[in-house]
Amino acid sequence: MTVYLDHAAATPLRPEARDAWLDALTSAGNASSVHSHGQAARRILEEAREALAGAVGCEPVEVVFTSGGTESVNLALKGLWGARRPRAAAIVLPDGEHHATLDAVSHLAERDGAEVRPVPLDVEGGIRISAFSDALDGAALATALMAGNETGTINDVATIAAAAGDRGVPLHIDAIAAFGHIDVDFRRLRGDAAAGVGLCALSVSAHKVGGPAGTGALVVSRTATLTPLLHGGGHQRRLRAGSQDVAGAAAFAAAATAAVSDLAAEADRLTLLRDELIRGVLAAVPDARLLGSRERRLPGNVHIHIPDAAGETLLFLLDQRGVSVSTGSACQAGVTEPSHVVLALGEDERVAGEVLRMTLGHTSTAADVAAVLAALPDAVARARAASGRRRGTRS
Amino acid sequence: MTVYLDHAAATPLRPEARDAWLDALTSAGNASSVHSHGQAARRILEEAREALAGAVGCEPVEVVFTSGGTESVNLALKGLWGARRPRAAAIVLPDGEHHATLDAVSHLAERDGAEVRPVPLDVEGGIRISAFSDALDGAALATALMAGNETGTINDVATIAAAAGDRGVPLHIDAIAAFGHIDVDFRRLRGDAAAGVGLCALSVSAHKVGGPAGTGALVVSRTATLTPLLHGGGHQRRLRAGSQDVAGAAAFAAAATAAVSDLAAEADRLTLLRDELIRGVLAAVPDARLLGSRERRLPGNVHIHIPDAAGETLLFLLDQRGVSVSTGSACQAGVTEPSHVVLALGEDERVAGEVLRMTLGHTSTAADVAAVLAALPDAVARARAASGRRRGTRS
Repeated sequence: MTVYLDHAAATPLRPEARDAWLDALTSAGNASSVHSHGQAARRILEEAREALAGAVGCEPVEVVFTSGGTESVNLALKGLWGARRPRAAAIVLPDGEHHATLDAVSHLAERDGAEVRPVPLDVEGGIRISAFSDALDGAALATALMAGNETGTINDVATIAAAAGDRGVPLHIDAIAAFGHIDVDFRRLRGDAAAGVGLCALSVSAHKVGGPAGTGALVVSRTATLTPLLHGGGHQRRLRAGSQDVAGAAAFAAAATAAVSDLAAEADRLTLLRDELIRGVLAAVPDARLLGSRERRLPGNVHIHIPDAAGETLLFLLDQRGVSVSTGSACQAGVTEPSHVVLALGEDERVAGEVLRMTLGHTSTAADVAAVLAALPDAVARARAASGRRRGTRS
Repeated sequence: MTVYLDHAAATPLRPEARDAWLDALTSAGNASSVHSHGQAARRILEEAREALAGAVGCEPVEVVFTSGGTESVNLALKGLWGARRPRAAAIVLPDGEHHATLDAVSHLAERDGAEVRPVPLDVEGGIRISAFSDALDGAALATALMAGNETGTINDVATIAAAAGDRGVPLHIDAIAAFGHIDVDFRRLRGDAAAGVGLCALSVSAHKVGGPAGTGALVVSRTATLTPLLHGGGHQRRLRAGSQDVAGAAAFAAAATAAVSDLAAEADRLTLLRDELIRGVLAAVPDARLLGSRERRLPGNVHIHIPDAAGETLLFLLDQRGVSVSTGSACQAGVTEPSHVVLALGEDERVAGEVLRMTLGHTSTAADVAAVLAALPDAVARARAASGRRRGTRS
């Protein structure tokens, strides 16, 4: 039996997405072609755009399909920067953002002299709203996670977006971990912000909601100005050149529609499973400690510190028993540096090396939770023994 | 009956690609994850990288998967530019390149002050090699189409690559229209050029060879230095961040393998069909004139001037009879500007408005050719009548 508890890295393709992908293939045309084959592809593409707009609460014209979350984030940050650079130089960057955000901002700092204004997190991994607001004055742009991909902590993005609107700063929200799990409503979040400021762009990704990898979208407000990353034709409001991946867009839209239509019931179901998993881990490992927030937490997220057991060792031991978990963001897998997200919670490097992330999703069942809880005690004991040996102490 | 003669815009998915995509889906993991699910995805991805490397004549580590041809071209040009900018300011840009290239270079000129050195084409649409070589001195980088996506004219890229190596200039080759139709061998083209100069990067795209849209690759020589377009993690030699589209890569590799293994026989088959189509059109429309080269031509390409018949009108009339053709690059569909490629042949704007591109591919048959030849005379007569009326003359 295999137990997959890494839905935050990639969740299995939903049957609706697979069917939509296969259906779209019968239309072979390039969606930019004028003939009937091209127009058939174009219809599928525009229906996908409408469906995704419905799922994310924006107008169809505001959906820009991309190759995934990383491209969406890069387009938002570099695009807003390119358009604002002559007027302002600071980027408001909360601690604990995803590496796509961190690395894109670092690039702008190195290449273009962007001034980075960090914003600290609270002990639960949430953005400190007052510090965020204070940092906005005169900034070129700001960015914020809707929910943390490691901690699962949900930020108060309504207040963050309102603050950006009030201070006249364009804001990007990274909703990649949140979309499909909690309500995302671009229009409501944007509110009545003036043209080109407040919430301007919001990133989502298909393979986090049961769509295919290699597809994502950036929602770009009608009134926002962005410099494109990819040049080469008038596709998608001139914001993103390139022949459209019609089948990918259709599959993404189908997955998003399924995730959103079922959101409340599925959130309740996953919250129950999650809480059972948390209770079970804390019962089996009494000195384990849940990181992040108990209340402001994504339904499927468990992010937990298990003292004296190296996270990597635990991961391998659980994997041997058919249980897939993570020590943090998959994008940093293989990197031995401690998670900057855990450090941003105020934890030290030792704690950062002893963290497990277990994330549930649409295929998760009570049997999965039971299986990991059955495997955990022995794995923890072995990991502690191994860690003790490495430190030269007896466990 | 539908007749699809626009394979250069997008060619139907090959069954091998579809099967590879579906097979890859059984492995749900993120290829960056450490656990078994992730490693299974990683194996599929690295096998795809190996297979594509085999098809294009490079080492697996030199394959950087992208979201398609447009991203590949943008990464090559902006990436080489970002790495070379402090030392040189000129970009060697032949006339008649694809819009991805033109628009990326325009962006570098506008934003970064790149100096553009144009290179004229000969009357057959080929790059003038001596002018290209002369333009190389002290340039930051150069780019060249392996074969034109409108004219189908094949360039002497071996000589072009050798010249770039000799002059110490990094070269990008856009092989998107050529790959899968004529032999592409990165290693041989690169030859013994010194590190970081000569052929450094080569673009290919999946949906031109029977793979899915939304997938492509940039071959990047081991010794080349490029600034990434997408930041956010250490994926793919730090040249292209983002969770890998494992299924897309597997499908691309399967399509490329099928196209390349069959290349010589299929080129012969398409060349026969193509020549029959050319003969038939010239017989039915005696004043029609083949553009581009008779000999240095992609096997499936027919690019033809039909005097006094607006290309757009002819496209619509043929489409009504179930025949899909193009007036030029799909990436410019809907744009009423005359094709810069036709103008680069030395033709005037009127000719540029009277051009049809018919491109054959892996699903094309003699029946397709017969069908378009049956439909063409009446369509041309009607288009000429309509064009004559528009010009206020009798036809």
